[in-house]
Amino acid sequence: MELLDKLNWRYAAKAMNGEQVAEEKIQRILEAARLSPTSSGLQPFEIFVIKNQELKEKIRPVAWNQSVITDCSHLLVFAAWDTYTADRINYMFDLTNDIRGFKNEGWENYRQMLLSSYPQKDAEENFNHAAKQAYIAFSQAIVAAAFEGVDTTPLEGFEPDAVDHILGLREKGLRSAVLLPIGYRQSDEDWLVNLVKVRKPMTDLVTVIN
Amino acid sequence: MELLDKLNWRYAAKAMNGEQVAEEKIQRILEAARLSPTSSGLQPFEIFVIKNQELKEKIRPVAWNQSVITDCSHLLVFAAWDTYTADRINYMFDLTNDIRGFKNEGWENYRQMLLSSYPQKDAEENFNHAAKQAYIAFSQAIVAAAFEGVDTTPLEGFEPDAVDHILGLREKGLRSAVLLPIGYRQSDEDWLVNLVKVRKPMTDLVTVIN
Repeated sequence: MELLDKLNWRYAAKAMNGEQVAEEKIQRILEAARLSPTSSGLQPFEIFVIKNQELKEKIRPVAWNQSVITDCSHLLVFAAWDTYTADRINYMFDLTNDIRGFKNEGWENYRQMLLSSYPQKDAEENFNHAAKQAYIAFSQAIVAAAFEGVDTTPLEGFEPDAVDHILGLREKGLRSAVLLPIGYRQSDEDWLVNLVKVRKPMTDLVTVIN
Repeated sequence: MELLDKLNWRYAAKAMNGEQVAEEKIQRILEAARLSPTSSGLQPFEIFVIKNQELKEKIRPVAWNQSVITDCSHLLVFAAWDTYTADRINYMFDLTNDIRGFKNEGWENYRQMLLSSYPQKDAEENFNHAAKQAYIAFSQAIVAAAFEGVDTTPLEGFEPDAVDHILGLREKGLRSAVLLPIGYRQSDEDWLVNLVKVRKPMTDLVTVIN
């Protein structure tokens, strides 16, 4: 399957060469993230696409000084909702009704069920749930980049509070969840590029119950 | 891009017809999950592939009685590690050394850093982190199924404690994170199949910082 070829090709680039990625490729990568499924279709996150070099320079020290932060072409920051609010839930249900052109009783009952549960929950629990949805999109973006022949570095090694502060995310009701530098590998400076991909054998990962 | 066609084709099937999915397709879907990137390469989850109909019948009542649980071909349960332990971390670092055939000082230092942090953290925090990694694989499995022309239902609507109990996950140091029924849509019983896909417009999802 072509997909498996792409997944075998990709790896977490540890050095990038600063080369710019074409905007049309970035748009398709973002479209893959946008099309991702999310819980109740709420898409509880936003994506910040940082091309500004000064901003990348500010983020690098709070991301373990990893060179890909500044040597990537586009730095994606997946920022999840800090909690679920009635406004945010209503936005997606109203958008759904607008796009589909009708109201449906079952769907409206589902809206009320979410309104009566999510906003009353602990914000940290809600953020964790929203962050998982962001990870689904993050994963699809990684796959899409591989289809574009573009490298990525899935990156959790950063100080979320510091990134939130630099980008002013908290004021927007968002919290940084995970980063994805996108660019092109600098093979001669990358310790990982020539090492074999390591994964658990299928027998340690999967249990079939017949 | 072919990937975007597949992502537009897929949807969360709300009814399945019980038809079996060929094992070679299931194997490629699992391989996509296995190839997923995870934090520090730890792959902190396992996947249970349930074909047993009695077991599906037991899970359905604790999953909002959703018909796809019993009418799917294979029910995937993504179960994340309940916490990070020294043994689990060492397993992956030892496996890496075995596969690559050498020890590396930087890599060994990294192992020690993880050993000195993860196992001492709160188990709930560790489980949440592990579950996010499971979501990356879950997402890749959904994409892989679309490439196989196979339907899936990304499914969070279930009682995790009950599923853990039914599958005996806690005794294995695992907790159910998310479910993925895999099968074929039953279009005439599926309220969602003919409705237009709804996503936030790109302008509400993405902020570009030039």
